[in-house]
Amino acid sequence: MINWNNMDTLASYKELCGQKKVNLAEVMTGENGAERVKKYSVPMAAGLTYNFGAKSVNDEILAVLAKLSEEAQLVEKFEALYNGEVINTGEKRLVLHQLTRGQLGKDVIAEGVNKREFYVAQQTKAAEFANKVHAGEITNAAGEKFTTVVQIGIGGSDLGPRAMYLALENWAKKNGTFKMKAEFISNVDPDDAVAVLNNVDLAHSLFIVVSKSGTTLETLTNESFVRDALAKAGLDASKHMLAVTSETSPLAKSSDYLAAFFMDDYIGGRYSSTSAVGGAVLSLAFGPDVFACFLNGAAEADAQAKNKDLFNNAALLDALIGVYECNVLGYRTTAVLPYAQALSRFPAHLQQLDMESNGKSVNRFGEPVNYTTGPVIFGEPGTNGQHSFYQLLHQGTDIIPLQFVGYKNSQMDTDVVIQDSTSQQKLCANVAAQIVAFACGKADENRNKNFEGGRPSSIIIGEKVTPESLGALLAHFENKVMFQGFVWNLNSFDQEGVQLGKVLAKRVLAHETDGALKVYSDLLNI
Amino acid sequence: MINWNNMDTLASYKELCGQKKVNLAEVMTGENGAERVKKYSVPMAAGLTYNFGAKSVNDEILAVLAKLSEEAQLVEKFEALYNGEVINTGEKRLVLHQLTRGQLGKDVIAEGVNKREFYVAQQTKAAEFANKVHAGEITNAAGEKFTTVVQIGIGGSDLGPRAMYLALENWAKKNGTFKMKAEFISNVDPDDAVAVLNNVDLAHSLFIVVSKSGTTLETLTNESFVRDALAKAGLDASKHMLAVTSETSPLAKSSDYLAAFFMDDYIGGRYSSTSAVGGAVLSLAFGPDVFACFLNGAAEADAQAKNKDLFNNAALLDALIGVYECNVLGYRTTAVLPYAQALSRFPAHLQQLDMESNGKSVNRFGEPVNYTTGPVIFGEPGTNGQHSFYQLLHQGTDIIPLQFVGYKNSQMDTDVVIQDSTSQQKLCANVAAQIVAFACGKADENRNKNFEGGRPSSIIIGEKVTPESLGALLAHFENKVMFQGFVWNLNSFDQEGVQLGKVLAKRVLAHETDGALKVYSDLLNI
Repeated sequence: MINWNNMDTLASYKELCGQKKVNLAEVMTGENGAERVKKYSVPMAAGLTYNFGAKSVNDEILAVLAKLSEEAQLVEKFEALYNGEVINTGEKRLVLHQLTRGQLGKDVIAEGVNKREFYVAQQTKAAEFANKVHAGEITNAAGEKFTTVVQIGIGGSDLGPRAMYLALENWAKKNGTFKMKAEFISNVDPDDAVAVLNNVDLAHSLFIVVSKSGTTLETLTNESFVRDALAKAGLDASKHMLAVTSETSPLAKSSDYLAAFFMDDYIGGRYSSTSAVGGAVLSLAFGPDVFACFLNGAAEADAQAKNKDLFNNAALLDALIGVYECNVLGYRTTAVLPYAQALSRFPAHLQQLDMESNGKSVNRFGEPVNYTTGPVIFGEPGTNGQHSFYQLLHQGTDIIPLQFVGYKNSQMDTDVVIQDSTSQQKLCANVAAQIVAFACGKADENRNKNFEGGRPSSIIIGEKVTPESLGALLAHFENKVMFQGFVWNLNSFDQEGVQLGKVLAKRVLAHETDGALKVYSDLLNI
Repeated sequence: MINWNNMDTLASYKELCGQKKVNLAEVMTGENGAERVKKYSVPMAAGLTYNFGAKSVNDEILAVLAKLSEEAQLVEKFEALYNGEVINTGEKRLVLHQLTRGQLGKDVIAEGVNKREFYVAQQTKAAEFANKVHAGEITNAAGEKFTTVVQIGIGGSDLGPRAMYLALENWAKKNGTFKMKAEFISNVDPDDAVAVLNNVDLAHSLFIVVSKSGTTLETLTNESFVRDALAKAGLDASKHMLAVTSETSPLAKSSDYLAAFFMDDYIGGRYSSTSAVGGAVLSLAFGPDVFACFLNGAAEADAQAKNKDLFNNAALLDALIGVYECNVLGYRTTAVLPYAQALSRFPAHLQQLDMESNGKSVNRFGEPVNYTTGPVIFGEPGTNGQHSFYQLLHQGTDIIPLQFVGYKNSQMDTDVVIQDSTSQQKLCANVAAQIVAFACGKADENRNKNFEGGRPSSIIIGEKVTPESLGALLAHFENKVMFQGFVWNLNSFDQEGVQLGKVLAKRVLAHETDGALKVYSDLLNI
C-alpha cells in the first residue's frame, strides 16, 4: 500500500530538520577529509561514479535520509510507476519513459497494447529508416544521399535531443560513426528558422517535425517555414519531411511525410530523449547502434534506481541530499557544471527537466504545500564558468550547491603539453581544485581575498563522454528529479504552468485584449 | 565629497524597508493596470524603452528609491568613475571602459597618457587592419583573402564578444556588411579547440589571442593548440595570428603576431566588449563601421546614465528596483529572457557581468556586509524558455523577477503567415502575454491550474537588434550593475573569488597535494 503524503507530515523529515549541521570546511580538511572523500562514493551505471564527499552531510544525516526514503516509499513509488500505475494524476496518465529503454517490471498494457513492444517497434522502424538513408536506399528526388537532418521542435523536442547530439557529435566523428550533421529549429522567432535554413543544403536535408500533439504552434509555424523554403527551391517537401508524433495527432494521419515515428501520452516531452523524439534524429546522425548504446546506458541507470539501498542507488541518494539542501539548509539554486565541452547544452536540458517537473507549489492532489520545492537550475561548462559566475559562487552572500561532472579522458584524443601537462589534465586539475576550494575555503587577513568555504558540491566522474555514459547520466538526472518529486509529493509529470501564457498569447493575436495586455500589445506593435 | 557607506546605514534604505508592499496582481488588473503600464515607461538610448509597469513598485516606493539614489550619491559616484578616480579600490585601478566609447567628463590622464585618445588609437589601428584584410591587402602567405576569424580567449574575452557576434551575424548578412565568419575557442577542454579547428579552413583563418595579462593559462594553451595545427598544415603562424593584450604583457613584445591591439588594466574583462577585445573580432567580422555604430549606441546609453532624474536614467532606475527586489522583497535570482534568437548568448554574458561584479560579501573596504548582494542570473531566449523552465517561474514556490527584452521587428525580414499572424507577431504576442500572466495570474478552482500572479517583470522594447541598439543594451546592463555595486558599497571591478581555484589547480598539476585534494586528483587520474 502506497501512501502519498506531504513531506512535512513525515516523522523522518522532522527528524532530519533536527539534525546537527555539518561544518563542511572542517570535515573536509586534512586526512579526515581524504577518508571522507574515499568513503562517500557510490558506483553508477556505465562506469560512472557519484562522489558526495563535499556535500554537507555525515553518517547521522545519511541515516535519517535513508529513513526518509523508507517512510516516503520512494523506491516503491518508482516500482508503481514502471509497473504502469497512473502516476501523472493531473492528466490521468501513466509515466513510461523508462520503458523506452528497458523492461523494469511487469508488462505494461495500455489500450490493449504492450507498451514496451510499442516503443521497441518504433525504435526498429526508425533504425530501419536510418539505415536506408545511410545506405542511399532512401534519397532525395534526384537519387542523391541526404547529408543533414534538421529537427523542428521546441522544449523537450529540442533541448534533450540537441544536448545529446552535441554531446556525441565529436565522439562519433572520432569513432567513425558520424553519418549526418544535425541542426535544430525551435524558436518562433523567424530569425531562428531563416538562419538555419540559410546554413543547410536544402536539397540534401531531411526535416523531422516533432510534436506529440501535432498542434504546437511554434513547431507548426517552423514547419511551414521549411515547406516554403523547399517549395521555393523547387523541392518536393513530402520527400524531405518526417514526423515524430502520437498516433492520434493530425501529423500521424498526413501523407505529407516520408515516414512517421510514434511516441504517446505516457512520455513527457522533457523525458523523451530516449523515445522516438531523440531516437529518430540521433539514429540518423550517428546510426542506430549508437542510439542503442545510449539506451543501454540509460537502462542500466534505471535498473540501479530500483535499489532500496541508498549507497547502491546514486539517483536516490542525490535526490535526498538535494532535498536536505533545499528544505533544511534553505539553498534555492543549483549550478550544474560539466567539465566537458561536449556537455555544453546539458545544463539547458536539465533546466527544463528539473524546473518543469518540480517547479510546483501544489501537491499531486492539488493542495498547496508548505515547503519549498524545485530549485532554479543553471550552469555552463567548466573551465568557462570559472572565468565568469564562479566569483559569486565562491564569495557571494548566498550558498549555491554545485553539481560537477568530470571525465578522465577527452573525446577526441588530441592534446598538447604546455607547462608539463596536457589540456585534459588541466581540465581535471581544475575541477578537483574547485571542489576543495568551495568546500574548504582559505582564510586571509585581507577579507577581500578570504574564502569562507562551506560551499557543498558533488561530482559525477566518468571515463569519457560516450553513448553509454551519456545515457546513464541522462537517466540519473531523470530519476533524481522523479525521486525528489516523490519526496515533495508533487506530480512531476504535468506542466499546467505553461498554459496561461498560451491562452493570453492567442488572445493578443486575435486582438481580443484590454487593460495592461492591450497596452503591451500596442507597445510591441502587434 | 563622496561618502562610501554601507546600504544599511542609509536613512532612505530604512525608509524603503518600511514601505507598504504593492499587490502586483491587483494594480495590474483592469484599466488601472493599463494606465500604469503607459506611465511606468522611460526612454533609453538608441530607441529602446524601459517599461517597468509590471514591477512591484508604486509612486511611493519610487520616491524613496529616488531618495536612496541621492543619499547613496549614485550619479556622483559614476561621475567620479568616468573622471578617473580609483574606483577599483582592491586593485587600485581606474575604471575606464566607458571611455572606449565616448568622453563623458574630464580628460583622464594616466601614466601620462590621455586614455580616451589611447582607446581611440587602438580602435583606429584595428579598423585599418580590418579594412586591409577585407580589401585583400593583408592576406595569407599564398596571397589569398582571409575568410574566418577565430577568437581565442576565456571569460570576458569570450562571452561578451561571442554574444555580440551572434547578435549581429544575421543582421550583417542581411545588410551586406558581413565580412568574415567568427568562431571562438575558450575552454581548456581539448575537445573545444579540436572541434573548432576541424571546422575551419586553417589556410584562410586569422586567430586573435586575447588575454590582458598575456598569462591566462587556458588561452595560452589554446594558442599552442592552434600553432600546432597551423604548423602541421605547413602554415606560418606569424602570418595568421593577432594579439589583443595590455602593452606590458609578454604577448605585446612578441614578434609572433601580425599585429597587436591594446587594452589596459582599467578595463575589466567583463566590461571589455567595447574595447579592442570586442573591437578586433567585430571589426574583422562586420567591418569597422558596424563596430563604430555599436560604440555609438553604448555611448548614448552612458550619457543617459549621467542623469540624476530616475525617470531619465533607465540604468539607475533598473538598478534601484533590483535592489528593492533583492533586499526588501528577498528575491535572490533574476531571469533574463530576450525574445530574440539573436540574443541567444546575451544571458550568458550578463551572467558573468552581474555575478562576477556583484557576487561579493565584503564592501569596498574589505568589511563584511550585513545584506545580500548580487543575485544569480540565468536565462534563455523566448519562446524557447516558455517550453522549459517557465513552469517554475509561474507556479514554483519562489518568486523570480524577470527581465524581458523584445523587438518589434525581426533581423532577417523573412516571415510566414500561419493562422493569420506572422512568426514575429507570435513572438511579440507571447512576450506581452507572459508579462501579464506573470503579474496578474488567473484564479482557478483546480489549484493545479491556478496562477497566483504577483511575479514581477520589466521589459526593454526596441525596434530591432541593430549595432546601435545592441550597444545601448550592453551599456544599460553595465551601468545597472555599476549602480547596484554603488548601492551595496561593493567594489564591482575586481574578482578575487576566482583566485583560490587557480592556486589549487596549479598545485594539482605539480602533484603537490594532500588530503581531499589528493583523493580527488587520484579519482580523476591526474
